[in-house]
Amino acid sequence: MRTEDGGWQRCHPPCFVRCLEFAGRSVTIRAMIQRTRIAQILAAPVPAEPAPVTVCGWARSRRDSKAGISFVDLSDGSSLTGLQVVIPATLPDYADLVKRIHTGTSLRVDGDLVASQGKGQAVEVQAKAVEIVGDLDPEAFPIQKQATSLDFLRTVPHLRARTRTFQAIMRVRSVLAHAVHRFFQERNFIYVHTPIISGEDCEGAGKQFRVTTFDPAKAPRAADGAVDWAQDFFGREVHLTVSGQLEGETYACGMGDVYTFGPTFRAENSNTPRHLAEFWMIEPEMAFCDLDGDRAVACDFVRYTVTEAIRLCATEIEFLEKQQSPGLRASLEKLATSEFAHLTYTDAVAALKKSGAKFEFPVEWGVDLQAEHERFLVEQYCRKPVVVTNYPKEIKAFYMRVDPDGRTVSAMDVLVPRMGELIGGSQREERHDVLVARMKEMHLDPARYAAYLDLRRFGTVPHAGFGLGFERLVCLVTGTANIRDVIPYPRVPGWCP
Amino acid sequence: MRTEDGGWQRCHPPCFVRCLEFAGRSVTIRAMIQRTRIAQILAAPVPAEPAPVTVCGWARSRRDSKAGISFVDLSDGSSLTGLQVVIPATLPDYADLVKRIHTGTSLRVDGDLVASQGKGQAVEVQAKAVEIVGDLDPEAFPIQKQATSLDFLRTVPHLRARTRTFQAIMRVRSVLAHAVHRFFQERNFIYVHTPIISGEDCEGAGKQFRVTTFDPAKAPRAADGAVDWAQDFFGREVHLTVSGQLEGETYACGMGDVYTFGPTFRAENSNTPRHLAEFWMIEPEMAFCDLDGDRAVACDFVRYTVTEAIRLCATEIEFLEKQQSPGLRASLEKLATSEFAHLTYTDAVAALKKSGAKFEFPVEWGVDLQAEHERFLVEQYCRKPVVVTNYPKEIKAFYMRVDPDGRTVSAMDVLVPRMGELIGGSQREERHDVLVARMKEMHLDPARYAAYLDLRRFGTVPHAGFGLGFERLVCLVTGTANIRDVIPYPRVPGWCP
Repeated sequence: MRTEDGGWQRCHPPCFVRCLEFAGRSVTIRAMIQRTRIAQILAAPVPAEPAPVTVCGWARSRRDSKAGISFVDLSDGSSLTGLQVVIPATLPDYADLVKRIHTGTSLRVDGDLVASQGKGQAVEVQAKAVEIVGDLDPEAFPIQKQATSLDFLRTVPHLRARTRTFQAIMRVRSVLAHAVHRFFQERNFIYVHTPIISGEDCEGAGKQFRVTTFDPAKAPRAADGAVDWAQDFFGREVHLTVSGQLEGETYACGMGDVYTFGPTFRAENSNTPRHLAEFWMIEPEMAFCDLDGDRAVACDFVRYTVTEAIRLCATEIEFLEKQQSPGLRASLEKLATSEFAHLTYTDAVAALKKSGAKFEFPVEWGVDLQAEHERFLVEQYCRKPVVVTNYPKEIKAFYMRVDPDGRTVSAMDVLVPRMGELIGGSQREERHDVLVARMKEMHLDPARYAAYLDLRRFGTVPHAGFGLGFERLVCLVTGTANIRDVIPYPRVPGWCP
Repeated sequence: MRTEDGGWQRCHPPCFVRCLEFAGRSVTIRAMIQRTRIAQILAAPVPAEPAPVTVCGWARSRRDSKAGISFVDLSDGSSLTGLQVVIPATLPDYADLVKRIHTGTSLRVDGDLVASQGKGQAVEVQAKAVEIVGDLDPEAFPIQKQATSLDFLRTVPHLRARTRTFQAIMRVRSVLAHAVHRFFQERNFIYVHTPIISGEDCEGAGKQFRVTTFDPAKAPRAADGAVDWAQDFFGREVHLTVSGQLEGETYACGMGDVYTFGPTFRAENSNTPRHLAEFWMIEPEMAFCDLDGDRAVACDFVRYTVTEAIRLCATEIEFLEKQQSPGLRASLEKLATSEFAHLTYTDAVAALKKSGAKFEFPVEWGVDLQAEHERFLVEQYCRKPVVVTNYPKEIKAFYMRVDPDGRTVSAMDVLVPRMGELIGGSQREERHDVLVARMKEMHLDPARYAAYLDLRRFGTVPHAGFGLGFERLVCLVTGTANIRDVIPYPRVPGWCP
């Protein structure tokens, strides 16, 4: 067995092993049910002479030539590109066999890997034996070779991983998720699993889902007729988290640099291509950090993750560009090396007013920026990604640090081309008394935030962080318009099949 | 800015940057509020002459010498080991200053980094200016320098990240989580975020939490008086997932090798040191894979993650060994290089019966193995980790593949020293008709599993996977007895503060 350092170690028990050159590193995968993955075959040099090989996978398509040969495009999911399998009519069971091969039929093929005689691929397998592993009825199978609409595929989420579009999107998603972890781990951030079931409400903003073991028809009642939550599983009312920020702060104020990456939930009745009821969120939090530091990390984060996607998913991005997003690769390459402009909210409003551009929503200091304003700043005014900072405190959350002018808070929004807001963050209010005053101003009860206030009572420190909906990053990098197409099982109002 | 490949690239905007030698690689962190992290200082060579430095952090302790010098052990969370700060009485505000420094006070220190004149550390900072960033009332602060009991710390989860024990455990947890991702990503597995809010029940086993936007006191009723779930957020009854396996299988049957790593939930009223209501689960699933392949991946996974923890968390493991788990390091080193024995359930039962050992629960073919039996197999019979396979079908889930003998299924449990069962897995039943028969045998309604059965109707393939409660792995590697101490905010019956 090849070790990570390039050495060898004995396998226990001895097993059949092949080495895969993946992402520039040689790593070991044990061949399970002895076969070679198509990704390995495509990454290897074209064999000088026929090399015996066993491959398994699903047929994407079958084409029969007049010469009595059949060509099958075989996919095993290890790479977006399939492998051409050539089935000669000389196989004893040829006629019966090929009739059973449709889009989606699973096969095991033993044959010789050779340089391809046709166009469109470097290698192909000349089959010597083909076994149908799993048949299907092509009339009943909903996935066809012809591109099936994304709308339709949303109705069969358990089958859409068989399509190239979803294989491309989901591989990019996986690579991006790993890039997120690498970005933070390389910088010595601690990954913190903040709780999903939560006793608190983060911003007073998002509507929350209730979690309970009660059957509503039989929920126990207290003497006054109200539901007796003390008898529920946790002895109180609890909800699904809308953010791990508050708990993230408790770990930053001890371990320094931390991040979360987990699911969050909003029970909002928003049936739009930009909203999910369940989505994954990334929330770094840094002690001894101000808004400038926060902004620097956020911009590095965007450049890093986009760069990694380009490096590791070139094939997928090329495919998605053709399939759904013209100009995708160039736009990502630009973003990966972009400088990010920096404007205060006050300067941004001045620029918008001075521009003379017509907006549906008029701009005035004190109102929140709309998508059209953000688009103007990114596409017209700065012509690059923009970080807008120091928003009026009235339009931002209670925990954001009040600026010296008393009118604005140390908040930031990171705006990128095509997407608009990708990241929102802030320096947190670390001054106990200022924070309590802000809570009261916003009609929040400080007693409900005792743990949060403890951080300001016991060795408080300046700290800052940001939040990023992971699916928005995946939409950006894959050029996907509807957020429901970048998560395996989307959860939206009225839809949880 | 140093790039990953060792090159340099310009920063946008130009910023203050230091390079950190971390995990053998040079990576960039931008210094936010210009300071040097203690991990950087401790990783660098001892300076030949005094080097100016700014550090920020929390005091762990203060000691005043008779000579009129104070010593502060400063932590910024970047490393388990603190930095000694020497405060000379010659500082103008010395007397007032040191009175305010208690365990937990946050400080900014400007001074010179020098070789330490005392024992116990290589370097120390000779302070030239000390700023109290955040005061505290030592009578009110619950965390003291003296080791505070884990039982007590569970009552202040928002502050326990200030203790060394939790910093050690949570760093190991973070490193293990990253090792999990690296293990699978290096092997070209796709990370799949399976849904948290679920319409289905995985095993018919675990009790589930209900997710709803209804207020039980006002839940709408249908004509027959029953709760009208059609009016709930998703238009139906939904629950928190107990496993991502079924959805993981739908992605494996398309993308080949996939894994999940996300939170799962059990509403069981188990108040034990081994149970959580909310925990993180890792579930790989592999197409064209049988039980032998599954077992090989599981054993590699254990060795890999334990090896990574030893490599990256030597200081933490040493500390935890002294604090709570004698012999921890040696036991992990042994596990990291262990062969794993392999026994069928039938052979295991025979060995247990033949052993003559006294068990509280008598062993007989057909009954599930108890912890005492597993311990005997690992510690006495095999004297190494053991994988037990091919259990009687009556004691295992419906989706496990029926063996040719018709009596057992292709299931496996991976048992390790100190912990017992760490991993459970199986080859899945890929034969449509056998699966339907098994469902009926177990009184499950095949109509409720239409998506799952579709995988067997359309190009079915042999596939296998396993599941691992991440917290159990963290308990194993940190030598922690109570699972509530390895997750930041434990959720257990009656407890969600």
